[in-house]
Amino acid sequence: MKALVFVGPRDMQYQDVPTPEPKEGEVRIHVKAVSICGSDSGGYKGGSAMRTPGLIMGHEFSGVIEKLGPGVTGLQVGQRVGTVTCLFCETCRDCQDGLGNVCMNRAIIGTTMPKYGPYPGAMADFVIAPAKKIMPLPDHVSFNEAALIEPLAISLRAVKHVKDIKGKTVAVYGAGPIGLLAMQVLRAREAARIIAIDVVDSRLEMAKECGATHIINSKNEKVEDIIAAMTDDGGVDVVFDAVGAPATINGGVEIVRCGGTVVWIGLAVPVFEFDYKHAVCKEITFQCSYMYTTEMEEGLDLIASGKMDVAKIITGVYPMSEGGKHFELIAKGESKDIKIILAND
Amino acid sequence: MKALVFVGPRDMQYQDVPTPEPKEGEVRIHVKAVSICGSDSGGYKGGSAMRTPGLIMGHEFSGVIEKLGPGVTGLQVGQRVGTVTCLFCETCRDCQDGLGNVCMNRAIIGTTMPKYGPYPGAMADFVIAPAKKIMPLPDHVSFNEAALIEPLAISLRAVKHVKDIKGKTVAVYGAGPIGLLAMQVLRAREAARIIAIDVVDSRLEMAKECGATHIINSKNEKVEDIIAAMTDDGGVDVVFDAVGAPATINGGVEIVRCGGTVVWIGLAVPVFEFDYKHAVCKEITFQCSYMYTTEMEEGLDLIASGKMDVAKIITGVYPMSEGGKHFELIAKGESKDIKIILAND
Repeated sequence: MKALVFVGPRDMQYQDVPTPEPKEGEVRIHVKAVSICGSDSGGYKGGSAMRTPGLIMGHEFSGVIEKLGPGVTGLQVGQRVGTVTCLFCETCRDCQDGLGNVCMNRAIIGTTMPKYGPYPGAMADFVIAPAKKIMPLPDHVSFNEAALIEPLAISLRAVKHVKDIKGKTVAVYGAGPIGLLAMQVLRAREAARIIAIDVVDSRLEMAKECGATHIINSKNEKVEDIIAAMTDDGGVDVVFDAVGAPATINGGVEIVRCGGTVVWIGLAVPVFEFDYKHAVCKEITFQCSYMYTTEMEEGLDLIASGKMDVAKIITGVYPMSEGGKHFELIAKGESKDIKIILAND
Repeated sequence: MKALVFVGPRDMQYQDVPTPEPKEGEVRIHVKAVSICGSDSGGYKGGSAMRTPGLIMGHEFSGVIEKLGPGVTGLQVGQRVGTVTCLFCETCRDCQDGLGNVCMNRAIIGTTMPKYGPYPGAMADFVIAPAKKIMPLPDHVSFNEAALIEPLAISLRAVKHVKDIKGKTVAVYGAGPIGLLAMQVLRAREAARIIAIDVVDSRLEMAKECGATHIINSKNEKVEDIIAAMTDDGGVDVVFDAVGAPATINGGVEIVRCGGTVVWIGLAVPVFEFDYKHAVCKEITFQCSYMYTTEMEEGLDLIASGKMDVAKIITGVYPMSEGGKHFELIAKGESKDIKIILAND
């Protein structure tokens, strides 16, 4: 089969590789759509232990079951499916406490994990997945939409961490896919004001379509002043940080109200100077949100019921064979796309 | 009257100053006991905008009402009292939302606040307080105990932030007054294991008396390894950081379990390098805890009912006139005391 192989930093090649065989309890999926995640493009640049050379990336995907491994029941060849790509061990303390998202033994399709190692992903003609992780798709959910169930799950979990978001004033740093999908969830959950903050005008325009009631381009405008004016100097109730850089983290401390909540999602910068004392003196709650547990299933329901329009953020659909070119455009900062789908016929 | 006046960094003088008069709605208290807080000694060293030259410090105190200002009813001269020393404005958005602890307009007796300015504290013969902030003391609650209601309130609020602490494994960084009183609260709330971490053996011995089931001297022992062994590599459920330094903040990220909670209380270092990505990938909740709202009243009830033995942590009771000497000993790191009371006859 053909696959986009991550040969090494800034080197993604569309190659012939052996077609994988489904083992006991697994299925082989003919990939129809796979989206490029920020973690994929970060790994492409060489910045992640989760993307080791030789890996086939791709953990946000959909397709058609093409072959059943031994012992698989309840699924059939030709079925349109999505996949829960985080393969929790289900036996450790974290898994038993409902925290499969942080399971230290987990594999993730399309990544290299510390204990499991590399698991070939969906940037290929075919991908292998455990049958129990398969989510059959309703006919009216497109392959492109289904590829976005995974990022939607990330955003959904982040918003779910905050109880009673209805009626609240909320700021979202980052109008990339995770921030935009968070805005869609926030709109569905009836946040009163959704303030999108980014540095790219086209993303902020997209934010408006995803539910943002206000947009701020932090390259041109002073976020703190605008938020202070909007909230009588009080600050927003909740901040979602889908960036995770010093400016947004410390900015969040500034713009959130005393006693408010900041949800940390983005992972742009791993270690940095944190405005700790200011945060404590405002008695802020910082809620980290990582991956998902049950949110992919919930996300599919939201899409199927029409409550989310995830396809809206897809700005480019390209043949899988051209994936390397788009990884490089993103790495150079020359891609204009918000969310890219790589497609197979 | 006599007062300990903070003349400037490392300069505390026991001087004659005018005796203050209680105004409408205020009372004058003859101070019997006032304790030195870490924020006082920090200010003495010159490190705080909340301790400006000329200030009389002292916000943890008790005494006897000596004079009633005009219009004060329900209190009487000679009454033994404690005082809620944080004077919230009661009208701002934060106050109306039950967050007087972060009220930007508040005064605090014995500190200089941004909007209110300096309010003379209790390191003097007399201190003025609003009548509505007075807490009459039961006869069996000593002046020394009553002086510790304020730090108890800080610790109580920190623990209250965590629901269902019963049965949990908890680590407490810092066996100073706030950490020790937190351990007493944790014991009362039936935490299963309370692991005290400090660098001073005598404080760790005191921690055992305050409820610690395990002690770790982090100068000699590797905290992460001990906690990993104690928790099957899982980490503790909750961390209380009563220090607030890079080593404890990032240590807390290390020793807490995935999905666990870290309560930030201590303010030793304002800005530092934070291990952000590690925290997010463990999906930790960071709960800042600052000051108190209703916890002084609750703290007095806990002391009066015998559930707390706050006097245990008092290791030195000295005449007010010797206050300057003890501030200097603390500043030099030469004080062996855990909690000091300065007393008037």
